[in-house]
Amino acid sequence: MNFYSDNVAGAAPEILAALAEGAAGSVQSYGADPATARVERRLAEIFETEIVVFPVATGTAANALALAALCPPYGAVYCHAESHVQVDECGAPEFYTGGAKLVPLAGAHGRIAPADLERALAAGGAGDVHHVQPAALSIGQLSEAGTAYTPGHVAELADVARRHGLGLHMDGARFANALVGLGCTPAELTWKAGVDVLSFGATKNGCLAAEALVFFKPGLAREIGFRRKRAGHLFSKMRFLSLQLEAYLADDLWLRLAGHANAMAARLAEGLAGAPGVEIAHPVDGNQIFVALPPAVKRGLRSEGFGLSTWDDRLSRLVCAFNTEPA
Amino acid sequence: MNFYSDNVAGAAPEILAALAEGAAGSVQSYGADPATARVERRLAEIFETEIVVFPVATGTAANALALAALCPPYGAVYCHAESHVQVDECGAPEFYTGGAKLVPLAGAHGRIAPADLERALAAGGAGDVHHVQPAALSIGQLSEAGTAYTPGHVAELADVARRHGLGLHMDGARFANALVGLGCTPAELTWKAGVDVLSFGATKNGCLAAEALVFFKPGLAREIGFRRKRAGHLFSKMRFLSLQLEAYLADDLWLRLAGHANAMAARLAEGLAGAPGVEIAHPVDGNQIFVALPPAVKRGLRSEGFGLSTWDDRLSRLVCAFNTEPA
Amino acid sequence: MNFYSDNVAGAAPEILAALAEGAAGSVQSYGADPATARVERRLAEIFETEIVVFPVATGTAANALALAALCPPYGAVYCHAESHVQVDECGAPEFYTGGAKLVPLAGAHGRIAPADLERALAAGGAGDVHHVQPAALSIGQLSEAGTAYTPGHVAELADVARRHGLGLHMDGARFANALVGLGCTPAELTWKAGVDVLSFGATKNGCLAAEALVFFKPGLAREIGFRRKRAGHLFSKMRFLSLQLEAYLADDLWLRLAGHANAMAARLAEGLAGAPGVEIAHPVDGNQIFVALPPAVKRGLRSEGFGLSTWDDRLSRLVCAFNTEPA
Amino acid sequence: MNFYSDNVAGAAPEILAALAEGAAGSVQSYGADPATARVERRLAEIFETEIVVFPVATGTAANALALAALCPPYGAVYCHAESHVQVDECGAPEFYTGGAKLVPLAGAHGRIAPADLERALAAGGAGDVHHVQPAALSIGQLSEAGTAYTPGHVAELADVARRHGLGLHMDGARFANALVGLGCTPAELTWKAGVDVLSFGATKNGCLAAEALVFFKPGLAREIGFRRKRAGHLFSKMRFLSLQLEAYLADDLWLRLAGHANAMAARLAEGLAGAPGVEIAHPVDGNQIFVALPPAVKRGLRSEGFGLSTWDDRLSRLVCAFNTEPA
Repeated sequence: MNFYSDNVAGAAPEILAALAEGAAGSVQSYGADPATARVERRLAEIFETEIVVFPVATGTAANALALAALCPPYGAVYCHAESHVQVDECGAPEFYTGGAKLVPLAGAHGRIAPADLERALAAGGAGDVHHVQPAALSIGQLSEAGTAYTPGHVAELADVARRHGLGLHMDGARFANALVGLGCTPAELTWKAGVDVLSFGATKNGCLAAEALVFFKPGLAREIGFRRKRAGHLFSKMRFLSLQLEAYLADDLWLRLAGHANAMAARLAEGLAGAPGVEIAHPVDGNQIFVALPPAVKRGLRSEGFGLSTWDDRLSRLVCAFNTEPA
Repeated sequence: MNFYSDNVAGAAPEILAALAEGAAGSVQSYGADPATARVERRLAEIFETEIVVFPVATGTAANALALAALCPPYGAVYCHAESHVQVDECGAPEFYTGGAKLVPLAGAHGRIAPADLERALAAGGAGDVHHVQPAALSIGQLSEAGTAYTPGHVAELADVARRHGLGLHMDGARFANALVGLGCTPAELTWKAGVDVLSFGATKNGCLAAEALVFFKPGLAREIGFRRKRAGHLFSKMRFLSLQLEAYLADDLWLRLAGHANAMAARLAEGLAGAPGVEIAHPVDGNQIFVALPPAVKRGLRSEGFGLSTWDDRLSRLVCAFNTEPA
Repeated sequence: MNFYSDNVAGAAPEILAALAEGAAGSVQSYGADPATARVERRLAEIFETEIVVFPVATGTAANALALAALCPPYGAVYCHAESHVQVDECGAPEFYTGGAKLVPLAGAHGRIAPADLERALAAGGAGDVHHVQPAALSIGQLSEAGTAYTPGHVAELADVARRHGLGLHMDGARFANALVGLGCTPAELTWKAGVDVLSFGATKNGCLAAEALVFFKPGLAREIGFRRKRAGHLFSKMRFLSLQLEAYLADDLWLRLAGHANAMAARLAEGLAGAPGVEIAHPVDGNQIFVALPPAVKRGLRSEGFGLSTWDDRLSRLVCAFNTEPA
Repeated sequence: MNFYSDNVAGAAPEILAALAEGAAGSVQSYGADPATARVERRLAEIFETEIVVFPVATGTAANALALAALCPPYGAVYCHAESHVQVDECGAPEFYTGGAKLVPLAGAHGRIAPADLERALAAGGAGDVHHVQPAALSIGQLSEAGTAYTPGHVAELADVARRHGLGLHMDGARFANALVGLGCTPAELTWKAGVDVLSFGATKNGCLAAEALVFFKPGLAREIGFRRKRAGHLFSKMRFLSLQLEAYLADDLWLRLAGHANAMAARLAEGLAGAPGVEIAHPVDGNQIFVALPPAVKRGLRSEGFGLSTWDDRLSRLVCAFNTEPA
């Protein structure tokens, strides 16, 4: 059983079937196809508001484009010190923004506390030409510690952000897992709480490679068509991104897949929590478990074929996916 | 019948089947999967030499990464004035190189003449800090006029490039069409003729979204892993790129698909050439036809449901694809 | 006598004296000194309008910052094929804009013809994500052929630019020479004719190293303070830039220096024009002469100690400076 | 008396005189003048080794060019959390490197401890495409807390840097103050201790605007000529930078000026240390004093006309300059 990451999983059968079915016939390229239009409409329904959508293939592309929309080259993006944008994208935000600075903030369980953001901004040098200018806040949903920001958390951060003129980006690589765990609506977790732009992840939750960059303020999206093309992320046969997203959203497939992964993680966490010497480090709000394992237990799990990743000196990470078997 | 472009076509059934078959089970992510390894080996066999391969999803990404490998921020890329890298990528080469300059060269039938390159380089200011430094030559295979560079053409240009210290990039968005048209081997058309790095296109010829960036000089590839990740073009579920490429290369599928498209184009060109007032503007070396059509003929074709694109004031473009029907 | 360029000359005594006099005492740094404020006010008087001024030390910095204010990373700057921004700045505009594309236009005597600009823009792909977006026009005053754009010329180009949504930048490295040659006011040659931002050159005309970046539309200057600092062009002891500019503008020194250089060039051109086999290639509108010289004459001038530069295969350039002696 | 910063001071008379004397006559531009050659030779003597020198006008330009020489776009620069490159340059290192990431390290008295660097590098992800690649270490001399790194400190850090493949940059904005304070030779404080490239500051210590970017490994300087031009930092009338540097280095003027500033700071620190409620926060190794002042003392100093800057919540900064009077 491989708990290394949710990206070691393949793709959901419904999504593969949609690709096969939609592959026949000629349709216009570069997004002028019917499936792309349908996906935008469907996402607008799901989010209960007007949005602008850009399908892309990777979460890093979605995040970096989102930050380029919010932050000028001389700007600063505030983010958690362990966040994906700061640690795991080889500088993609810096590349896409033209050299902005990411300001890493500490915070328990992978989440930024509003007071810490406030304090950092107070020292941020807004208006002073010697300093990069505070421009955006980026938060992960789930965070890199597997925890979720509740709508209340998001709103508190958004309030600080708004008062300081920052745009708010949510890296929703595991948005569905967070949503299912929290039991709120997509709107409540995003624009109603103050999110300006969302990387709506789908790859980790059953797609082959598909994410939707969702702008809740259409004005922010003005440049993104050009930036996406210029980055090589405008697919000529766009239907193959949109067909994935369409199947993902149809009949609540996305929520069912995430619900399954979360349930598997909850069951696994329960099992681990009872074992001697095992310590669950962070609340399990979605499909990820961060756990301190005695070396013998770790060796034992591996010898039985359990894939897991060594997260840092102390913790291991186990991730359940849409197709994790209950065994 | 849609001749608008080869990217209005869907995907070949063999390639869709490979995705479905390879989707089951867990494999390591980010390219550490077996399919990716097999693709690299297969391409090395096809090109009869040691290579380094980076699967990416779009031709623009492949081209821009290739040029970033060859050209520093203060460098110049020589290319045809109508080439894809110059005209159709919204500045992707400039973005990926960190602000290099593309130097557009004229040339009949979409091809650069060695003497024109030589002349441009003589005025190029090599070694002078006031001028961007000549660093790369990029040629399209097929060119934007639908013509091919023969191995002899390539070798002549490579000779000029080598003498001036330029790296040679081939934008092979329609590499298979060129190859089939020319009847030479992949090695003869690339590294044996002096090509350093190839964008090996597959999307237009039957894949959903898959290209292989192929380095014939492994030393040039040293930075590309980082640059690809940083650009958001490292796929987590890489198997889904590699499975496409694997099926594309298996049993000469790629050559059969291109052969079909070329044959359809030849037949179509023959038919057009006989019509009154119709003038084929460039040699039809692959699957593209550039043609001056009397307005009445153009209207007639459109009213019968033929898709074609208006190329410029004078010419229309018709493109045959892997799945164009002989009707 | 050195006619190689006007930058082989030193600095005017008045300007050196101003540095020495203003060096004593403490003043606030980074532009919060009285001299900087005085320069901005003086330039506003000279240009008869509200402006925003940024002193910098080099023309390349002024030009590149100006273009970064007008052109996004995915934008295009239209300019003459022989212009300084295109040929002689090692890609500074590309660097500062974050990778914009310069579109070189031909044009007699170093000047862009409105019809050629119109034609290029018609093919420029505005609004289409595949193409870089037309954003700015940059013209040289003097041009690289030593000619001036009259206020009428500028207005015609500005009209085309405005209709296509382009900002208009004037590279005034030799603005004083053009102005004196044309006999118009600074306002007539700039904002009244439609110029949005001017690189107001002073180095070539008697300063040590000082240029003023002048914005006629304050809204365009919003980001420049940050971009200048970030580029390392915000001087801590700013007074030493501003003192140069203040002395340069005082008592019409700048116009007298340029008038002298122009007069010397006119006299030299007159002398050359009478010599057998000598052909003046372009109108001498300022202090530069482009001339086809018989090899013997060229050798003769050099053996007598005349410095001149070989411009291209055919032409030599002779430049008179503020301190060229009438001998 | 203004202790706000050493950049509120003007320029030393010897340096102003050198400008006036060297302004006459024609010399070649862009650094091909005799003064520039003499400065490079003189610096080579002072540093007792072969070097490559690039005069520039600002410390930010020197630092950013140095880091661009050491760090690729996907690289990381390790630096102190309060360092000038991290805090006070509005992202210039990010701009010049093409989007590298600065990794801020804590450290007492403004200095990085080798163990902290070692620990950060252990977590730095070298060789992993998901992470920016450790490429450079940058240290300030003086640090932003007014302290110096001894040759021993530098060598320890250089040892860590070398073992991890990092280049070592020293931001010597106050290099002369550090040198005089430490009583070692320029060679001992730089290349003999492992420094690869030095921003040799002169502006703060009596020049108008002049710094020398000094490469101790000529191979690292290969691209800098192009990068300097492209950034608008190649002065046409280069003599005016070089004349400043020449006078600065002549007859040990630079050491005398720094010695004076340091002596004034020592005297001032002694005076402050005796006052009730006053606490000197960091060792005074050069010309800067960081001090916690009781509000009444602070008000008192200001009402007597003493300029000083509020550094943070707790500390004030007083800086003595080359021309601070002993009063």
